[in-house]
Amino acid sequence: MSTAVNHQYKLAARPVGTVKASDWKSTQEPLRDPADGEVVIQVLYISLDPAMRGWMNDSKASYIPPVGLGEVMRALAVGRVTASKNPKFAVGDHVSGLLGVQDYAYSNGQGLTKVDPKLAPLPVYLSTLGMPGMTAYFGLLEVGQPKAGDTVVVSGAAGAVGSVVGQIAKIKGARVIGIAGSADKCRYLVEELGFDAAIDYKSEDVAAALAQHAPQGVNVYFDNVGGDILDAVLTRLARGARIVICGAISQYNNTTPVKGPANYLSLLVTRSTMTGIVVSDYYDRTIEAAMVMAGWIASGKLKTREDVINGLDNFPKAFDMLFSGANNGKLVLKLATA
Amino acid sequence: MSTAVNHQYKLAARPVGTVKASDWKSTQEPLRDPADGEVVIQVLYISLDPAMRGWMNDSKASYIPPVGLGEVMRALAVGRVTASKNPKFAVGDHVSGLLGVQDYAYSNGQGLTKVDPKLAPLPVYLSTLGMPGMTAYFGLLEVGQPKAGDTVVVSGAAGAVGSVVGQIAKIKGARVIGIAGSADKCRYLVEELGFDAAIDYKSEDVAAALAQHAPQGVNVYFDNVGGDILDAVLTRLARGARIVICGAISQYNNTTPVKGPANYLSLLVTRSTMTGIVVSDYYDRTIEAAMVMAGWIASGKLKTREDVINGLDNFPKAFDMLFSGANNGKLVLKLATA
Repeated sequence: MSTAVNHQYKLAARPVGTVKASDWKSTQEPLRDPADGEVVIQVLYISLDPAMRGWMNDSKASYIPPVGLGEVMRALAVGRVTASKNPKFAVGDHVSGLLGVQDYAYSNGQGLTKVDPKLAPLPVYLSTLGMPGMTAYFGLLEVGQPKAGDTVVVSGAAGAVGSVVGQIAKIKGARVIGIAGSADKCRYLVEELGFDAAIDYKSEDVAAALAQHAPQGVNVYFDNVGGDILDAVLTRLARGARIVICGAISQYNNTTPVKGPANYLSLLVTRSTMTGIVVSDYYDRTIEAAMVMAGWIASGKLKTREDVINGLDNFPKAFDMLFSGANNGKLVLKLATA
Repeated sequence: MSTAVNHQYKLAARPVGTVKASDWKSTQEPLRDPADGEVVIQVLYISLDPAMRGWMNDSKASYIPPVGLGEVMRALAVGRVTASKNPKFAVGDHVSGLLGVQDYAYSNGQGLTKVDPKLAPLPVYLSTLGMPGMTAYFGLLEVGQPKAGDTVVVSGAAGAVGSVVGQIAKIKGARVIGIAGSADKCRYLVEELGFDAAIDYKSEDVAAALAQHAPQGVNVYFDNVGGDILDAVLTRLARGARIVICGAISQYNNTTPVKGPANYLSLLVTRSTMTGIVVSDYYDRTIEAAMVMAGWIASGKLKTREDVINGLDNFPKAFDMLFSGANNGKLVLKLATA
């Protein structure tokens, strides 16, 4: 093997509020050969996702157990098999899975998916053809169920999930309004991705802007952020609206209780529905969605953008960018080239 | 006519927080003969409903316009036709409709429904066979969709809607837990109505009691109260739970913003749904539901209880009882005997 040691980021402390550098511990351990049935994978690209913040909390009631203190931080990643004692994987295969924040991962093959770097660049398997894209696809189409002519609003619209939600809604014939956190991001949504309108929540009154851009009300709201933006959209629902609760990034670093949506009674007035979505429920339909979205990417209907940060040492800094909104497109950490 | 004047309660001021006596104005006006197409109805029983509090606010975005200042307070009621120039109604007919808080109402017949005092006592047409019963029936069966073996939780369980929700859920084979505000009410739910368990939210920790009574989690929650109880139930949802948002009586007298459900992200973790219901959407199915429920009442499966207060002069006091929880069963004001 070309590297003698495996650099890793482990969870050193459970963060209170915003994650601090001291919540991580950078460690090294020697590489070993695979045991029977195991493969060794060199990690090439690591996905940075808001959900990771939740995995760091010691919460009993989540959809996945928390990362233990002293354990390698959990992360989706793509890599290349460098050694194998598992007949299903050969040296040189590219795979995606929960490989963790480290240079090398060991796996018994469970949860690994082979990916083809000739069909799409590897980072795309962490964005539009990965977990964020699947979240957008199933959350919007299965729960949001937009119809042609509907007005669809998405928050975190320039992010990995939101940008795909908006583009799929356009493909389905909806009018699409994105909410994002800078004039640059708003310009990107309208000019590059073809959104009908975009609202910069840092400089605009979201409820007033929605009244202007969605005069007939909002039929589908795909919520990635929670907080005040969710409350603003609740005041502008059309009758029978569908709200998809995908995340609440505005609340993840709270040290105080989550801000519940004070305007939730508009669900009653407008006979609307608010439904949570967890993408792993659709795991067995991943290939179906990947094929459809790969077709849209190939035909130019669906654009995918990754914001690639170089070097494992930049992991803590890149993680912070998720919450400051500094990234443009899906945030990916590049460790090595395929 | 037997009475020369019509006593009325009008809305004198828009209440701030809890309704005060000075928000009402008691007035009298002489009776007149019906115009062409009109009927005069002597009001016999007036329904007191939490929704009336919402009608008093000058809110733009509700499902029904507010009551205007100086107008007779809107209320559902049953009465008897005392004069008619409308061929569809004869003197002596009993009718239900939005007759208002007054001794006599004039109507062109729109929105009036004939009721038969031989089939059920008149107050039952304001409770189980009226708006609260319809709300329970359609909210539970159409939105909550309980299956046999499900755990169904209802708040405001001893009230006009909640008591019917719980009994229908039992009829459908669910395990039913009621949340109510006194030991007496809890006893009534379990001993008289056959609920499997009841939680007194004034003396018990609701989340802890739910953990005990619903160890597999809550499949359906029918919410009449909002606030802390909604938040407690959100921590105990089973996967794929359905929350029916019917009302939020704990929040109706707020002078501060409504308390949004801080635990709403459990919708995400449990892949659950929160949906608002407005009973008027099911208006064209009223007869269907009334026939089914009348059958259950006749066979003893569905018990109905009305708390009858005598005299129009007691309207302000009876209205307050809605929010203090002092009533036992559907609160009805009796003006005269049929």
